[in-house]
Amino acid sequence: MNYGIIIKILGNLLLFQIAALLPSLGIALYLGEPELQAFLYTIGILVLFGVPLSLKKTKSKRIQAKEGLTIVTLGWVLVAFFAAFPFYLSGVIPSFTNALFESVSGLTTTGASVIDNVEALSKGLLFWRSFLPWLGGMGIIVLTLAISPTLGVGGYQIYKAETPGPTAGKLSPRLHDTAKILFLVYLLITLALTVFLYFGGLSLFESLIHAFGTIGTGGLSTKNASIGAFNNHFIPWVISIFMIAAGVNFSLYYLMYQRKWRDAFSNSEFRLYLVVIAIGTILITLNLYGNIYQSLSESFRQAFFQVSSFITTTAYRTVDYESWPRFSQGILLFLLFIGGSSGSAAGSIKVIRHLVLLKLIKREISKILHPRAFIPIKVDGKSIPSSVETNIVGFFFLYLVLFASGSLLIMLFENIDFISASTAVAASLGNVGAGFGLVGPGHSFDFFTAESKMILAFLMLLGRLELFTIFVLLTPDFWRN
Amino acid sequence: MNYGIIIKILGNLLLFQIAALLPSLGIALYLGEPELQAFLYTIGILVLFGVPLSLKKTKSKRIQAKEGLTIVTLGWVLVAFFAAFPFYLSGVIPSFTNALFESVSGLTTTGASVIDNVEALSKGLLFWRSFLPWLGGMGIIVLTLAISPTLGVGGYQIYKAETPGPTAGKLSPRLHDTAKILFLVYLLITLALTVFLYFGGLSLFESLIHAFGTIGTGGLSTKNASIGAFNNHFIPWVISIFMIAAGVNFSLYYLMYQRKWRDAFSNSEFRLYLVVIAIGTILITLNLYGNIYQSLSESFRQAFFQVSSFITTTAYRTVDYESWPRFSQGILLFLLFIGGSSGSAAGSIKVIRHLVLLKLIKREISKILHPRAFIPIKVDGKSIPSSVETNIVGFFFLYLVLFASGSLLIMLFENIDFISASTAVAASLGNVGAGFGLVGPGHSFDFFTAESKMILAFLMLLGRLELFTIFVLLTPDFWRN
Repeated sequence: MNYGIIIKILGNLLLFQIAALLPSLGIALYLGEPELQAFLYTIGILVLFGVPLSLKKTKSKRIQAKEGLTIVTLGWVLVAFFAAFPFYLSGVIPSFTNALFESVSGLTTTGASVIDNVEALSKGLLFWRSFLPWLGGMGIIVLTLAISPTLGVGGYQIYKAETPGPTAGKLSPRLHDTAKILFLVYLLITLALTVFLYFGGLSLFESLIHAFGTIGTGGLSTKNASIGAFNNHFIPWVISIFMIAAGVNFSLYYLMYQRKWRDAFSNSEFRLYLVVIAIGTILITLNLYGNIYQSLSESFRQAFFQVSSFITTTAYRTVDYESWPRFSQGILLFLLFIGGSSGSAAGSIKVIRHLVLLKLIKREISKILHPRAFIPIKVDGKSIPSSVETNIVGFFFLYLVLFASGSLLIMLFENIDFISASTAVAASLGNVGAGFGLVGPGHSFDFFTAESKMILAFLMLLGRLELFTIFVLLTPDFWRN
Repeated sequence: MNYGIIIKILGNLLLFQIAALLPSLGIALYLGEPELQAFLYTIGILVLFGVPLSLKKTKSKRIQAKEGLTIVTLGWVLVAFFAAFPFYLSGVIPSFTNALFESVSGLTTTGASVIDNVEALSKGLLFWRSFLPWLGGMGIIVLTLAISPTLGVGGYQIYKAETPGPTAGKLSPRLHDTAKILFLVYLLITLALTVFLYFGGLSLFESLIHAFGTIGTGGLSTKNASIGAFNNHFIPWVISIFMIAAGVNFSLYYLMYQRKWRDAFSNSEFRLYLVVIAIGTILITLNLYGNIYQSLSESFRQAFFQVSSFITTTAYRTVDYESWPRFSQGILLFLLFIGGSSGSAAGSIKVIRHLVLLKLIKREISKILHPRAFIPIKVDGKSIPSSVETNIVGFFFLYLVLFASGSLLIMLFENIDFISASTAVAASLGNVGAGFGLVGPGHSFDFFTAESKMILAFLMLLGRLELFTIFVLLTPDFWRN
């Protein structure tokens, strides 16, 4: 293992985190907020650790799978660790466990919070809290579409396999360029949404925060009532549409930019993603109409918003969806396990895996009548190698094992009802950030014990890094030379 | 498709059902119960349908996969249909939908009931109700271990793949002999339990009913309080142990009979099955001790009973397990998705599938570091063919899709809470028969609407016939020549 390069890159990451703190620092400075000190201290600490690490001399620049996996996992943990300092040092979140929960939840784009009253937060801290999921979302897109395929890390072969035509790694021949393109797309979509929200009547600050929350799929707001606070039809519509856009594989935007419209729109994952949104919205609309809302358009609007919000693992809300009929709630609950597209900031199991698993069921049924036939699974006209098939299957089963054991652990520490415990776990593992019952609309995660908070934060990291990335680090094989 | 042989065999099945009704008829006759008439009418109807069908002349005796699948599915449906008549014609269950629910639930070894007060039932009808799951349990063992492998039906390759040494189909060279051996083992275990219970203080009738309920994994009782009605330590212990015995692959008993002890005890599924029971029991014991029961032995006894009852999908109970801490309840809830061993009467996903899926996760983690290595999954020292692997995966995902869509449908028709709706579905699909909330300990399924009852009954059949058997009949490919 090339420890030198690992240390150096982690050091650089900490220096990058200093840059990421500057906007919040600027706001605190400009508004003369007392949290300024906390930001300054955090930057001081980052300099103290980051500079020596980044100056580490390395014999070789070689990064292979092992180094890549270590950097990704430790990088995410370290950034989350230091990101907790502004919350903790400012005294806004007096317990470090809670501050760490908040920062892990942010960076993993989960958006579950221990803060009950976000409207009382200072602007600088509010910015930092919302900027984190946006950074995390960008990080995961760059990681899955640009870095992982280059490292040839097995767990990410799924992304290589499913992007149509030019595979993800081939967006551009050089790693650096691919990352830059993805970053630009991400930035442009965020800016576009900011402009829309600003013209929809939000302040510039509110527009930015909600653009971060939407594109990064964190779902953090400046309001306790989330998007429901804006008494306005335009804002929820715009956010719905941008949530859906944020849940699309970002390499499709590059295809669109190249005017390869056909490749982009014929993408099977993209299509299934839209179909799930359409079906979910129609079913909930019909269930709400007459029961909860007397107007069909109101039913449709609310259904569309909440479906978009749950499938993209954003968890913004306009209403108390727990007052809806159980059938509608049930659809939202199962969306916790679907998730957006691969190569987006959305979490959970993701549409491409469900697509392959559905095709697998179909094949198994055919195989009963044709036991000797070899029937490959095709996505976008190409056969999926069986290694990708089993990777998807392993992921799916491991996801459910983690869901079950996580739920049991939470029940052990909390003795709360099944739905609160299990949707808290599903909302953490899937990086959604809200569930039902005690973690339902408008509830904070503050009531959980410190043990539960650490379990949930660990699940957020596991989910964000697609499980295997962290699990492989726990095998003895990994540490053997 | 050889329709002649299908009709003939179904006719024979109806004649066999007449024989199955005789003990109940005898009891009703002996005790002079008014239900006698209902039994006589049912037999009359069976003669009316069964005799002409069984006399059908066939050009060929050829049974291949298609004929086999049709016979199995239609056979199960027809027997359940006519088994409802004694309930309906006696007026004990005045609605035919409810009577059908009761008989489907019985024959599939589920044991969910629409009858609130079983203690008010006449002996003849009580016998019929409890005899059905015993017949169904025997039917499924013979089907999975003797008939399916002979038909070469793809969906059942799992059983061929996992039984050690002599594969299931080879228990004995001839189909008829294999079926006879399995029937004898099943009968002997039932008789042994009857004797134990009788010497434990139950009446002969009660002993028989509970032996049927235990070995067939239906879990039906003569008492409203289930096994909790017997104020006695011996009875629950004996039933626990026999439940576990009933959840073992029956071909292992044949190995033991042949004194191939090593083959039997080194069976991986058998070992994992015992490990799951041990872990579940220990965790619940520790959780109960001091919280619910002040004695460790009492905690252990109750934990052991309930874990055995849920993993084998029997759903007998000694206590109101919903008064236990949430952690213990959570373990029982997740056991709904585990199930006993393949080749037993137990339902649900089954231990062998979980074993293969766990090994699959392990392999996927290794493959991140060794992406080009070919790592087969081994069970009992033998590599599993990839076709069996994907069959298991397809089954698992389809099971969860059915669970999710079934739960949504129930919520649509009932608007009841998540846990009641989803555990009712899990308890039906897994042929367990009890869950939590409105379908918790001691609750009947009577409150469900007719639509929900039909959905749940359909899920019981799907689960009992291992999903694919029925799904393949719904494909156009099946009906093409």
